Amino acid sequence: MRIVAALGGNALLRRGEQPDAAVQQHHVHEAARSLAELVFAGHELVITHGNGPQVGLLAQESAADPDLTVPYPLDVLGAQTQGMIGTLLVRELVQRLPGRAVTALITHTEVDPHDPAFQRPDKFVGPRLTEHRARMLELERGWTCARDGAHLRRVVPSPRPTAILEVPAIRALLAAGTVVIAAGGGGVPVTRDHDTGRMRGVEAVVDKDSTAVLLAEQLDADALLILTDVTHVFTRFGSAHPGAITETTPEQLRALQLPAGSMRPKAEAAAAFSEHTGGLAAIGPLDDALGTILGTTGTTVRRGPGPKALPSGPSALGPVHRAEAG
Amino acid sequence: MRIVAALGGNALLRRGEQPDAAVQQHHVHEAARSLAELVFAGHELVITHGNGPQVGLLAQESAADPDLTVPYPLDVLGAQTQGMIGTLLVRELVQRLPGRAVTALITHTEVDPHDPAFQRPDKFVGPRLTEHRARMLELERGWTCARDGAHLRRVVPSPRPTAILEVPAIRALLAAGTVVIAAGGGGVPVTRDHDTGRMRGVEAVVDKDSTAVLLAEQLDADALLILTDVTHVFTRFGSAHPGAITETTPEQLRALQLPAGSMRPKAEAAAAFSEHTGGLAAIGPLDDALGTILGTTGTTVRRGPGPKALPSGPSALGPVHRAEAG
Repeated sequence: MRIVAALGGNALLRRGEQPDAAVQQHHVHEAARSLAELVFAGHELVITHGNGPQVGLLAQESAADPDLTVPYPLDVLGAQTQGMIGTLLVRELVQRLPGRAVTALITHTEVDPHDPAFQRPDKFVGPRLTEHRARMLELERGWTCARDGAHLRRVVPSPRPTAILEVPAIRALLAAGTVVIAAGGGGVPVTRDHDTGRMRGVEAVVDKDSTAVLLAEQLDADALLILTDVTHVFTRFGSAHPGAITETTPEQLRALQLPAGSMRPKAEAAAAFSEHTGGLAAIGPLDDALGTILGTTGTTVRRGPGPKALPSGPSALGPVHRAEAG
Repeated sequence: MRIVAALGGNALLRRGEQPDAAVQQHHVHEAARSLAELVFAGHELVITHGNGPQVGLLAQESAADPDLTVPYPLDVLGAQTQGMIGTLLVRELVQRLPGRAVTALITHTEVDPHDPAFQRPDKFVGPRLTEHRARMLELERGWTCARDGAHLRRVVPSPRPTAILEVPAIRALLAAGTVVIAAGGGGVPVTRDHDTGRMRGVEAVVDKDSTAVLLAEQLDADALLILTDVTHVFTRFGSAHPGAITETTPEQLRALQLPAGSMRPKAEAAAAFSEHTGGLAAIGPLDDALGTILGTTGTTVRRGPGPKALPSGPSALGPVHRAEAG
């Protein structure tokens, strides 16, 4: 099978941890063991990853740099995080996969300059700001700031990805037996002028789960694997009696009202890939990627065998989710 | 022909300029026009580049970051600069080369952990330090500092590159018609433990011109093109009557006593590639890459047709360098 595996931000850095390189290297060390098992099992593998904490850190450093007139824009900083996270993944995977080529690509994601997201920036990036500082940055740099709880923070657009520039390169590398790391942080966001061919970076952050779906579709992947820090998608998550879902359909997954911050975009990505392609989507624990593909852990998402518009397909009648000890 | 083109640091940032992303983008815009002409002429192209000013900037930012316990090591920062410079090159080249795939790889250069360079760090990185600060950093972080003119600065080892990890990936991409950007800043320096396969980043900077030679050799390139801000290698450089060299041999080039800082490593790289492979090496102006390959500008370096050990080969008798109006 050709598998696209998407690593959550926690693959490299957990909430509250120091963002030191050694800490990230340690987490990647663990993730690499689990990912290597997919390759040993004979699968083609493309790995994509988040970059939330890392891009926030670099944006702060760049904004504080007295040598710069203007801090580096988010697209350039995103490319920096692809380099940083890419090298950490490559060095751990190379050790786990002797004789196997592993390569990280700087990857660009095209977005539509007329995407409505540009009119309503809503993705928080960077540190908390005082009211005064926020207003100053809005004036000086054209930023938009918004309230995140009690504090103000910068918000940027999160446009929908429309194409991934490096798909032909990734295909060529897969054909040569290479494990590929690509589209980190949702990809470096760019727009194209289709008359002049001009490509520009844009101050935006593409949702990494949306990019993972597009990447898997454009590569004709058989499976999209979304790896995170929980074993399953749960019903009643956070309650005393959460119910682990082992199998579900896109429709049922969407009906769950999952928490917006973390699980909802993952569930939406799994549902979308399954619906669009009929392939296997699964959400499972980072430390058992192979089990997640095999269905021994994690939540497997498959569209029913009938046409998707017909709600009477067999899967809609079968068992949907089975509660397990959380 | 398969060409490896090495861009000097000035391709992105000139001495004394603000290191803003927009300034670098502007320079890359110009370089891309010249590089694209090599592709139009039917050549396979791999581009490599320096990262001196960029890695210095990021090292300073990382050292000043209050959120980090330990600043990012040079290998991780080097990977960040590959991302940053890679995206700037990709977006300009894609515009110049419609329909052509252009891909930047995070590239790792293996060095020998027993390289004597580790015993005598001599490559300056980062800002000037006060005596007090230098001694404190030596104690706290195990740095070595040395005098650079009137000031102290950090020095790091510059070990010889022994292998480039991504060579098979670059070959696969070239075979698929892709223009590849690789081994920026000399590559991310790593060591391998050949028993365990363990790969570690090392606090070192590999000389980018040495890496360019190794890259060209490992790719069986027909030509190594070293592009910089002068039109030729000159005799009597800096004098009132410099002499532009249009053709030379490795031996003659080495005999020139070129200035150590900038031209000597380029000349050594050109001489080494020519000697080892018999291929074409050329040092020329960044704004005329095609002319440099064709010999209408720049300095062409070719070993004589006879075996290199025989000083009586025809090239040693022919015209060596022709003075031109500088």
